[in-house]
Amino acid sequence: MFFHRQELQHQATPERPDAVYARKLQEVLGGQYGEITVAMQYGFQSWNIHLPGKYRDLLYGIGAEEFGHVEMLATMIAQLLEKAPLGITDEAVQNDPTVAAVIGGTDLQHAIVAGAGARPVDSMGNPWSAGYITASGNLLADFTANANAEMQGRLQVARLYHMTDDHGVRDLLAFLLARDTMHQNQWLAAAQELRDEGLEGLPVPDNFPLGKEDRDVSYQYINFSNGQHASEGRWASGPTPDGKGEFSYVAEPPAGVPMPPPTHPDARLYGTTDVPNVVEKMAGRAQDALGRE
Amino acid sequence: MFFHRQELQHQATPERPDAVYARKLQEVLGGQYGEITVAMQYGFQSWNIHLPGKYRDLLYGIGAEEFGHVEMLATMIAQLLEKAPLGITDEAVQNDPTVAAVIGGTDLQHAIVAGAGARPVDSMGNPWSAGYITASGNLLADFTANANAEMQGRLQVARLYHMTDDHGVRDLLAFLLARDTMHQNQWLAAAQELRDEGLEGLPVPDNFPLGKEDRDVSYQYINFSNGQHASEGRWASGPTPDGKGEFSYVAEPPAGVPMPPPTHPDARLYGTTDVPNVVEKMAGRAQDALGRE
Amino acid sequence: MFFHRQELQHQATPERPDAVYARKLQEVLGGQYGEITVAMQYGFQSWNIHLPGKYRDLLYGIGAEEFGHVEMLATMIAQLLEKAPLGITDEAVQNDPTVAAVIGGTDLQHAIVAGAGARPVDSMGNPWSAGYITASGNLLADFTANANAEMQGRLQVARLYHMTDDHGVRDLLAFLLARDTMHQNQWLAAAQELRDEGLEGLPVPDNFPLGKEDRDVSYQYINFSNGQHASEGRWASGPTPDGKGEFSYVAEPPAGVPMPPPTHPDARLYGTTDVPNVVEKMAGRAQDALGRE
Amino acid sequence: MFFHRQELQHQATPERPDAVYARKLQEVLGGQYGEITVAMQYGFQSWNIHLPGKYRDLLYGIGAEEFGHVEMLATMIAQLLEKAPLGITDEAVQNDPTVAAVIGGTDLQHAIVAGAGARPVDSMGNPWSAGYITASGNLLADFTANANAEMQGRLQVARLYHMTDDHGVRDLLAFLLARDTMHQNQWLAAAQELRDEGLEGLPVPDNFPLGKEDRDVSYQYINFSNGQHASEGRWASGPTPDGKGEFSYVAEPPAGVPMPPPTHPDARLYGTTDVPNVVEKMAGRAQDALGRE
Amino acid sequence: MFFHRQELQHQATPERPDAVYARKLQEVLGGQYGEITVAMQYGFQSWNIHLPGKYRDLLYGIGAEEFGHVEMLATMIAQLLEKAPLGITDEAVQNDPTVAAVIGGTDLQHAIVAGAGARPVDSMGNPWSAGYITASGNLLADFTANANAEMQGRLQVARLYHMTDDHGVRDLLAFLLARDTMHQNQWLAAAQELRDEGLEGLPVPDNFPLGKEDRDVSYQYINFSNGQHASEGRWASGPTPDGKGEFSYVAEPPAGVPMPPPTHPDARLYGTTDVPNVVEKMAGRAQDALGRE
Amino acid sequence: MFFHRQELQHQATPERPDAVYARKLQEVLGGQYGEITVAMQYGFQSWNIHLPGKYRDLLYGIGAEEFGHVEMLATMIAQLLEKAPLGITDEAVQNDPTVAAVIGGTDLQHAIVAGAGARPVDSMGNPWSAGYITASGNLLADFTANANAEMQGRLQVARLYHMTDDHGVRDLLAFLLARDTMHQNQWLAAAQELRDEGLEGLPVPDNFPLGKEDRDVSYQYINFSNGQHASEGRWASGPTPDGKGEFSYVAEPPAGVPMPPPTHPDARLYGTTDVPNVVEKMAGRAQDALGRE
Repeated sequence: MFFHRQELQHQATPERPDAVYARKLQEVLGGQYGEITVAMQYGFQSWNIHLPGKYRDLLYGIGAEEFGHVEMLATMIAQLLEKAPLGITDEAVQNDPTVAAVIGGTDLQHAIVAGAGARPVDSMGNPWSAGYITASGNLLADFTANANAEMQGRLQVARLYHMTDDHGVRDLLAFLLARDTMHQNQWLAAAQELRDEGLEGLPVPDNFPLGKEDRDVSYQYINFSNGQHASEGRWASGPTPDGKGEFSYVAEPPAGVPMPPPTHPDARLYGTTDVPNVVEKMAGRAQDALGRE
Repeated sequence: MFFHRQELQHQATPERPDAVYARKLQEVLGGQYGEITVAMQYGFQSWNIHLPGKYRDLLYGIGAEEFGHVEMLATMIAQLLEKAPLGITDEAVQNDPTVAAVIGGTDLQHAIVAGAGARPVDSMGNPWSAGYITASGNLLADFTANANAEMQGRLQVARLYHMTDDHGVRDLLAFLLARDTMHQNQWLAAAQELRDEGLEGLPVPDNFPLGKEDRDVSYQYINFSNGQHASEGRWASGPTPDGKGEFSYVAEPPAGVPMPPPTHPDARLYGTTDVPNVVEKMAGRAQDALGRE
Repeated sequence: MFFHRQELQHQATPERPDAVYARKLQEVLGGQYGEITVAMQYGFQSWNIHLPGKYRDLLYGIGAEEFGHVEMLATMIAQLLEKAPLGITDEAVQNDPTVAAVIGGTDLQHAIVAGAGARPVDSMGNPWSAGYITASGNLLADFTANANAEMQGRLQVARLYHMTDDHGVRDLLAFLLARDTMHQNQWLAAAQELRDEGLEGLPVPDNFPLGKEDRDVSYQYINFSNGQHASEGRWASGPTPDGKGEFSYVAEPPAGVPMPPPTHPDARLYGTTDVPNVVEKMAGRAQDALGRE
Repeated sequence: MFFHRQELQHQATPERPDAVYARKLQEVLGGQYGEITVAMQYGFQSWNIHLPGKYRDLLYGIGAEEFGHVEMLATMIAQLLEKAPLGITDEAVQNDPTVAAVIGGTDLQHAIVAGAGARPVDSMGNPWSAGYITASGNLLADFTANANAEMQGRLQVARLYHMTDDHGVRDLLAFLLARDTMHQNQWLAAAQELRDEGLEGLPVPDNFPLGKEDRDVSYQYINFSNGQHASEGRWASGPTPDGKGEFSYVAEPPAGVPMPPPTHPDARLYGTTDVPNVVEKMAGRAQDALGRE
Repeated sequence: MFFHRQELQHQATPERPDAVYARKLQEVLGGQYGEITVAMQYGFQSWNIHLPGKYRDLLYGIGAEEFGHVEMLATMIAQLLEKAPLGITDEAVQNDPTVAAVIGGTDLQHAIVAGAGARPVDSMGNPWSAGYITASGNLLADFTANANAEMQGRLQVARLYHMTDDHGVRDLLAFLLARDTMHQNQWLAAAQELRDEGLEGLPVPDNFPLGKEDRDVSYQYINFSNGQHASEGRWASGPTPDGKGEFSYVAEPPAGVPMPPPTHPDARLYGTTDVPNVVEKMAGRAQDALGRE
Repeated sequence: MFFHRQELQHQATPERPDAVYARKLQEVLGGQYGEITVAMQYGFQSWNIHLPGKYRDLLYGIGAEEFGHVEMLATMIAQLLEKAPLGITDEAVQNDPTVAAVIGGTDLQHAIVAGAGARPVDSMGNPWSAGYITASGNLLADFTANANAEMQGRLQVARLYHMTDDHGVRDLLAFLLARDTMHQNQWLAAAQELRDEGLEGLPVPDNFPLGKEDRDVSYQYINFSNGQHASEGRWASGPTPDGKGEFSYVAEPPAGVPMPPPTHPDARLYGTTDVPNVVEKMAGRAQDALGRE
């Protein structure tokens, strides 16, 4: 169960409205790595989890916080939009390019659809899609996904920080940056703990029988481009992070195998095929000529 | 520039057609973590990269391999579809539930749209979307995204392995599992190398001035659910992975701040507001009564 | 702020697993009118609202409940999936059509992507999209949207009730049906209260100056099909629900106005136009012949 | 069958081109509540209807009108785009910010893709999606959906009215406002008629046996937030709109039920589980060490 | 303006319901090349056209027919669904795999969402998207798009013909096949007429000054794969269809040009760059140590 | 297999950065008819093809080139973005409308998400979707689709040519224009060769038995609008392009057939039906009153 309290975790009030910036801020609300994504991602991971205890509590404990971040950003955006101009006619543009420029930079649906309210979209107006989230049931994979989400999210907030000088907005972003710092650290620590406790290991999933894998190519860097500098990286020699092999570097892919011959599915799918089929076609046409089915 | 050679990196021929399994295999071709995703993801990361040398060569070197994996899976799927049944009428279902069951399990567009060919979709028929890929310009974030993609991908292939006993299919999956093993290891090694060389560090982005962040909450686990076991994890005490702080555990969120008052945007957006607005409305209605604009 | 408690509002445990039904239940979790939709819809309406007091509290008060419904359905689905079969090879289909039939009816991503977990999708596998939600800032319009959402939702739950005889599932659905009953009634009552208090009226938005509207056609039913029975409805005569007019019935649309002439945009957009343009083209071709830009 | 006549229902010619406004107008052509939505929605409702007579004629009669509205808006947009500037280089921006501002506010695909033509998209460029429409087969639910669509649509047109001072555009909007006034009234009247005639009632669907519903919570307002003002609304006490109960107000949700234990699906899905599973993993690893499958 | 007549262009009644086939038929109603696509495509082409007369009348004349085809298919699908089973519990599957198989093959939203009605989706349940249609303003390009749409459409109908033996369904498909025959022929004829009349020519757009094009590679087949048979086609030698050149065959791509050096955008975007940047980072960290902004 | 070489097919460096133009150029990278579309389209056609030899080599031979075009455009866009401004606050807009105008015209995700990198989206920010591509297995249909794709693509590049005066950009566009010229010609030649060799013919698919088609309407132009000029086109009289019939012109559609009666699916789907159903409802309500299931 979720409960709501009519407070915000941190102050979320701009010094002044700024409809152009409101649009930019949508990215970290409704974008691929916005707050809706992490809130829903941690939610589905918690509802699908297969073990009780600290990992489940971790997912529950952070999931609700993220819904609160959604709320803070939406509240901030609504205030940034409070003086959003309605728009402008072509004639007016001639007289005041500034206003026209502002309109050009806004999310038009903020005004037309939401009446100066926040929208569940990214900075280019794409609606949030559940196709963004990850919940596989394998916690080592999912905590890595979570670490990535927090990294991408903090990166975007850091960029947005430099796109405004509004102290109210920056104050909120400073708070979100700190929480993203925590959450990056947290998921990396949790991934490590899974490995330390032997619950999961590398490569994910580590309990798939390695004997079934084609071990010859499990630790080869095979170079499909013509630069050779990748041979200098630690992914090209030395022990592998999973502790089960040694990296090697293959400068050119070995010869492949011949392609299988083209398929010949049911003729009633009317794919284009080669000569024998032409014979059939002529038969078909003859049949047509005779007016029969 | 890309060049094509009419060979496959590994054999990709099933023992026998299986239209139901062909649909399942679509997931690792055109799904969120399928081969199209990693091919395009490494491509965009390489085209946008800001430094020459081993990291760039790494991205180029693996990107083209992944396009080849797309090709192997598409080729395999086309062969699995070679005997795809055209479908069945209701009456026939009465007589042969087996055929009906097969139809029910297939991707119908394999037959109707592609004429027994592979499709750029996932196992539920959703077309591949570029919204799946990640390329931020920050390599530590992106290599973490790549590690996650390879983990999710290997997990899915491992699951698919148990959904068939076709030796030809399993032979290809064994190869893909091994390459995913390599690529998981590779991206983790590359992420570590970025840190070792001082090019990037934690938290991402590590060169955002920490003084601007709200440091009070940078390492606090704040518990928004009522389970207490998360306090037992390494994310709740001890040094943080970024080496810059100590985790602490906050059992209950501190009191928040009051919400800002509701916004009052331009009245011509016709949002619902409180009493004073009613006065205006009445004025508006009076105006209407007088027939004026 | 949102807080989570590790309890469910109502019991959500099936008598037995049923992977086929799990897929059906996805519709009311992640479909157009599923619980994610109403949770997010009430959330955005509350964050964007322009007045304090009972309407705002109403939106806050129900929004968090709906996130709890998302959780109950996800939990139920995960349990329905607990014995989800991994799939089956073509050969096995020959021997046991029952298992094949089950596979055909499942959401394949439940197994391949989520490892027997709930997914943020509808019953056909489409990911939930924020394009489903409505939050306009005008409460009379939005409460009507909410009433509709609860009607469609209850209708779907009622249909799903008859698609299972599992007592555990039906027990949860009986609870959800009752809550949808409440919420339908609630939004209709709230819409009426807005009108009674003079905050909003019909037609939405009721404070747009009616004098600016083309009043001649404001209450005409204009019949664009050739059936005449629509003249028998209360929408064809008598007073209008907004209390501002009388319905009338127009059996055939009056003559229209001529279409404007075709547009002629900048020739460098290379749209196809008529003769004069051909002249220019010939000039262009002559220019080409002369090798000039 | 549909027939086309080369006339417009109302004049649709702007005084002058305005490419920025053309983009805004796309919202009511191809947006969530644009004319394509209502045209297709009434179409599918009419094709799926289960009873002959006035309700069917109503749907047919209005559906074709809405396709004509699509045509009027597309025609208007094409004219607004007639002088759309092709764009501008960076250098030019330095000299004439006005032109740059105009470009920034346009739908770039109007020029690049459509050659100064209307597009089937909303004001932010999202293509129209059939995921917007509603046709459930239950007319009371669907007429409520229709009333909402007309309310949202009229609201957006009213907002757009204030974003231009072009008399030609405003003349068309005044006509559309009037038709939306009619259609709001019409659907509300039709919904009432369904109830008066006993064809449908509240709650939708009203012929689901109420005895199967969990009646204890059918009329309770349960407050999941900490504001108490919702108790003042008519949804918190008194008779319910469906005439079957009395509202009550529950200030705090009652205690919930414990969550079910985590699920344990097939181990070959490689989800993370607890200790016993670790034993198996070790067995698996031992097996690996022995090189067996 | 569009007008509706309560008749169908051709009979559209199946001999018997078949919910599985109903789903398949959705492909040609709401798929990429279904009837909604061509109806909307011809509509937008007609509304955006830049010249009066026969081409415009052609687009108007066929567009309305296609909306009627949408109606015929929706009507047919609703009838095929008339006996759609509600579904089945897991236990029942054990007893009657036939029913389970049918359920597995249906569009679940047909029952749950539409109450046994047609849906605006394809055979895999993807909602129709306006991203499918084409209307560029250049008629030669667009008529080619139209010819393709009619070819793909007829191909799909031909495949669907063999997936049923219901005489009512086949009767409708026979009619649609014939209309697609006409429309293929029609668009090819119209494309030819545009060229004969000099309104458009090849390459599209033919009035872009060829002098601005890089003519050296305008007629070269450059082979990026290692098969050599493409040299045998008429695209590898002889006169080109546009009448302006001679095809040539280039067996291997000539050497390319070096890639440009990596970009170095604003450091505040926190992209990963090389050594000099590390110096700045250290400065940043020193600044952090001093606690300054 | 695909191989990468660190060169570009043609130079792709602008004279100077231009973030606004970078966004426009996204259309031909990630739009409906951008380079990703043709690369993936030719790829899937080649992997699904049913015959060996020159047509397969043609598809392989051009597919890899198109992936190289994706790379050239991405590289160009990254350079155009090198000096992308971070954005601007509201106050600054007052002082420098030029900068604001630039921001308004950019793809905001270029900065916030990609850190000044290319994105897999179109000019309005819609992510590339695999729903754009076509691969049916019928080569005559698919080569027509390919010809259309190259026409639309060249048209868009031609438009973009006039939206910049940067010589570096124009130099790349001149190259792409030439390649599109080749590819248009190539696909038209290949389509003709298929017909000349008797592999495919018109109408597609030409081996569907014409006797099963409703031949009465196979060559009729049926006019569903009220303009009569379409009778003047070559699609209205004379021999048809498929060589199998004569066009005729039908000035008005013949009378249609009556619509089938409304459907009556399972009552438990709760669709609205007519009077008899009301009786059942009353029975249901009576049952409710008695408290029974």
